Amino acid sequence: MRQHPGRYHRDEKLIAAQGSLKLVGRPMRPGGTLIDVNGVRIGGDDLVVIAGPCAVESENQLLTIAKAVKASGASILRGGAYKPRTSPYAFQGLKEEGLRILALARQETGLPVATEVLDTRQLDLVCRYADIIQVGSRSMQNFAILEEVGKCGKTVLLKRGMSSTIEEFLLAAEYIMKGGNSRVILCERGIRTFENSTRNTLDLNAVPMLKQLTHLPVIVDPSHGTGRWWMVPWLSKAAVAVGADGLILEVHHKPHDALSDGPQSLTPDSFDQLMRDLRPIAHALGAEIAHSTLVPVG
Amino acid sequence: MRQHPGRYHRDEKLIAAQGSLKLVGRPMRPGGTLIDVNGVRIGGDDLVVIAGPCAVESENQLLTIAKAVKASGASILRGGAYKPRTSPYAFQGLKEEGLRILALARQETGLPVATEVLDTRQLDLVCRYADIIQVGSRSMQNFAILEEVGKCGKTVLLKRGMSSTIEEFLLAAEYIMKGGNSRVILCERGIRTFENSTRNTLDLNAVPMLKQLTHLPVIVDPSHGTGRWWMVPWLSKAAVAVGADGLILEVHHKPHDALSDGPQSLTPDSFDQLMRDLRPIAHALGAEIAHSTLVPVG
Amino acid sequence: MRQHPGRYHRDEKLIAAQGSLKLVGRPMRPGGTLIDVNGVRIGGDDLVVIAGPCAVESENQLLTIAKAVKASGASILRGGAYKPRTSPYAFQGLKEEGLRILALARQETGLPVATEVLDTRQLDLVCRYADIIQVGSRSMQNFAILEEVGKCGKTVLLKRGMSSTIEEFLLAAEYIMKGGNSRVILCERGIRTFENSTRNTLDLNAVPMLKQLTHLPVIVDPSHGTGRWWMVPWLSKAAVAVGADGLILEVHHKPHDALSDGPQSLTPDSFDQLMRDLRPIAHALGAEIAHSTLVPVG
Amino acid sequence: MRQHPGRYHRDEKLIAAQGSLKLVGRPMRPGGTLIDVNGVRIGGDDLVVIAGPCAVESENQLLTIAKAVKASGASILRGGAYKPRTSPYAFQGLKEEGLRILALARQETGLPVATEVLDTRQLDLVCRYADIIQVGSRSMQNFAILEEVGKCGKTVLLKRGMSSTIEEFLLAAEYIMKGGNSRVILCERGIRTFENSTRNTLDLNAVPMLKQLTHLPVIVDPSHGTGRWWMVPWLSKAAVAVGADGLILEVHHKPHDALSDGPQSLTPDSFDQLMRDLRPIAHALGAEIAHSTLVPVG
Repeated sequence: MRQHPGRYHRDEKLIAAQGSLKLVGRPMRPGGTLIDVNGVRIGGDDLVVIAGPCAVESENQLLTIAKAVKASGASILRGGAYKPRTSPYAFQGLKEEGLRILALARQETGLPVATEVLDTRQLDLVCRYADIIQVGSRSMQNFAILEEVGKCGKTVLLKRGMSSTIEEFLLAAEYIMKGGNSRVILCERGIRTFENSTRNTLDLNAVPMLKQLTHLPVIVDPSHGTGRWWMVPWLSKAAVAVGADGLILEVHHKPHDALSDGPQSLTPDSFDQLMRDLRPIAHALGAEIAHSTLVPVG
Repeated sequence: MRQHPGRYHRDEKLIAAQGSLKLVGRPMRPGGTLIDVNGVRIGGDDLVVIAGPCAVESENQLLTIAKAVKASGASILRGGAYKPRTSPYAFQGLKEEGLRILALARQETGLPVATEVLDTRQLDLVCRYADIIQVGSRSMQNFAILEEVGKCGKTVLLKRGMSSTIEEFLLAAEYIMKGGNSRVILCERGIRTFENSTRNTLDLNAVPMLKQLTHLPVIVDPSHGTGRWWMVPWLSKAAVAVGADGLILEVHHKPHDALSDGPQSLTPDSFDQLMRDLRPIAHALGAEIAHSTLVPVG
Repeated sequence: MRQHPGRYHRDEKLIAAQGSLKLVGRPMRPGGTLIDVNGVRIGGDDLVVIAGPCAVESENQLLTIAKAVKASGASILRGGAYKPRTSPYAFQGLKEEGLRILALARQETGLPVATEVLDTRQLDLVCRYADIIQVGSRSMQNFAILEEVGKCGKTVLLKRGMSSTIEEFLLAAEYIMKGGNSRVILCERGIRTFENSTRNTLDLNAVPMLKQLTHLPVIVDPSHGTGRWWMVPWLSKAAVAVGADGLILEVHHKPHDALSDGPQSLTPDSFDQLMRDLRPIAHALGAEIAHSTLVPVG
Repeated sequence: MRQHPGRYHRDEKLIAAQGSLKLVGRPMRPGGTLIDVNGVRIGGDDLVVIAGPCAVESENQLLTIAKAVKASGASILRGGAYKPRTSPYAFQGLKEEGLRILALARQETGLPVATEVLDTRQLDLVCRYADIIQVGSRSMQNFAILEEVGKCGKTVLLKRGMSSTIEEFLLAAEYIMKGGNSRVILCERGIRTFENSTRNTLDLNAVPMLKQLTHLPVIVDPSHGTGRWWMVPWLSKAAVAVGADGLILEVHHKPHDALSDGPQSLTPDSFDQLMRDLRPIAHALGAEIAHSTLVPVG
């Protein structure tokens, strides 16, 4: 059985800090929260890999990638229909058409789908199509969205804000749980620091700290955490070793043509290699990579 | 006439950066943008002071403060009806009742009112009551709100995100202008750094940099920028000296009882003293403090 | 008489923090420390301007600049003989020859000279030539240097480390005072943050915070704090308005040919204009710019 | 054989950045640098663990810890004789007496010893006793020390400055190599960010980035990188998984009585458990933990 950071230590100072974490605090569920999404279990002994393109670009693009990541062992498909872009002149996503394509990919592959919501007015629509609602970094303190996803029955993937402290991150999750929804997955995705050779600084300290403070599952996004595809495998291995419950990874079959985040996207081949490399590390930690249906190619 | 940072220098590297700033870039309006809100002009030779409580708490509270800040020379009233709070257990604002009280205070004092919107679904309602729509730090990259306020006819007060670069800040303003609304006031309010003796690090470098890059008015929020009321006068003076077009200041007649941000709120007396101290500095720079109706008390 | 931030407020939390500041804490000398360097007084009602090139490059260069800054009202000359450079291939300073040229410039102009020490082995030599020993940002926690300058009789200009908290900065000064030397001037010179449109983020919050916590004089370096010469006048005005006891500014007669820091150096003309612009702001605050011997040129 | 990040990818942008890295740049030695310290090889297929107390406190303390860490598989002993402390009132180290005790521990255990130098004047003395000279975070840009250790024949352990970019870190190593010494080990030890639930933010992105840019070995310090002993095992596993060449860990047999860094020190027992847990992860990556002489206790 896998050892969790949260299971072996008591730090009095941290416990004091949990006063305001009435619902998300570890003491509420010392054994941790296990979330089941269409049969995929997150937060248990197995590691979950969520993979897919940054943005849904077309039916062909998403189906190609979805089939590839499934074959390599991913158990959930990601893809953005509504894209938060720094510039108003950048590609903003296919919107409802993107949601429709995600649903089609789920039908074809059986993978549950995760996609982001940017506005409370989109929520009903997104809930009709998605299995996991992503609240992105820029929305981590969009309290209107937090309240609304707290009322829907869907699993929520809450990404850490790029300058959010651990405490603020947990209080954002507290908003969702206070609304009645305890199906919350936390995601460390890199913070903003002075270092500029990487897109963000992946804060792996956050994983054991979060596991200590909360019972909720914690996954890691090395794609945004580094911004460079060739670094993603190394930080993925580190994320598994540090005790994460899973990974979320950007994969694109033609990264150079991707409408967003190409430089940080793995190809299906490099994703497949990574999955092979991760399994022995997971085993060394007493964990499995969930839902592996991989057929070795060589 | 007041000298503006944006009027006297050309930096080739910065000009190159303006490529993506199609609408907010300084070259679009080299002379700067002057915004008129019910007769109060922002972005010209005069300095505008926006003052009021963090949150609208009651009719009596807001009217007391509104009359006081008007008497001391404030020309716009601020007050939050919808409050973005880190914890779900903190006071969340009076919501529509708060908007109604703001409108009453405007009627009583003649001051235009500025208040924050947190959700696109609130926007129509807020627009019915407010003269200036504030997009707060946590919403600077809430692109749904940016697009919607780009379509309404109201003046928008856009606060810099707490870990936003200057470029991201300007691209957020570009979203609003792209929607058709050029009535945008930028507000520096402190950034998040390693330093923790103050709530935020007020980045006054941002003022001349923004004035250089954009034609939009730039104001400063020393209340959030420091988090400590006794520092506010000093940073207010600095903000005027560095070339800001105005200030936004938190004032509360009973800071110890304030439902939010008490530690950074000036009392009416300290606000009045600050206004007196600011005038000679403004004069030294060739500027006036706008709409002064102050009658010296001593 | 000039009002100081440290003179009008008591913040219980801050006072508690002063426990470890046995010598530099404000309560040790509530009225502040006035340092006299060859007749130039720092920490009183008058503002002191230290100006000169980043590096001493030649006798002709330094004398030209020294005479110009003196004529415009600077009261202390700065110039580096030992230069801390990020790359080993960059110009490292003229070393002892630079010290000799500094002494010559003092003889010619009467201005006291400030220069940096990088190594304890240089200290005796530097003390023979300089009036003020600068401990630079990279040396703020060079405890061997702090201990040695604590034992010499010279005035020490201690610059804040680029990621130093206020508390660490004051404890570095405490090292010097513990050695027996209370002639310490603190210098805010910008901190390292995520923002990259400027070289550093000038933290003007630090000025009233330091004045509150310590009796030592506090000056500001807008040249390093911005990294861009055209921003220097704006941040200099802000530094005066925020309550600094003085400024340290880089001036070069041929910035494009400077061996270091050209992009952030004022020309003698722009320095002269800045000095003229600063005086009315200083007056508005009840202060004077020290040792003005300026003869208007037009 | 272990795969290294530096061996499988070319990033044109990064290669361009290597222009100023004449000696430390990866292209100088594509296969990497292997450093031999008294038979311990750093930078090869095996992982090296350096362990010991933060500060040498007494003969008994150091020998107890040295024997324990050797038994658990550490191959180098660490211990500070000269301690850089933020406050002048904190324990400053045993100085030469500490060096003498380190030499004694080497004699008793056969482990090479690593210790820090804080001042150029100490260097000859430290070199007489130590096998590895540590240049600490606060000294990473102490260019006088960098130049001197570049001339000595000892192996240098260069720790990243707490707000140093990757580029500045490599240029500091370039100073040492320019002096003629290519026996340089780089150490990531956490950077300073806004996050304050941990002492520093361990930047594991830095490991593959450094391996890509330079041929020098890279180790990780999870003790300073987290500041909390119970997080150290998790981040140690992550450091191994991310491709580090080794670890440096603080171990103390009585952490509550330690004169410095107690809260981040492992006990000998928890260190032993960590070493056992690391081996299968290392194996999964094709690496060994060097010099394991561990006899299982149960």
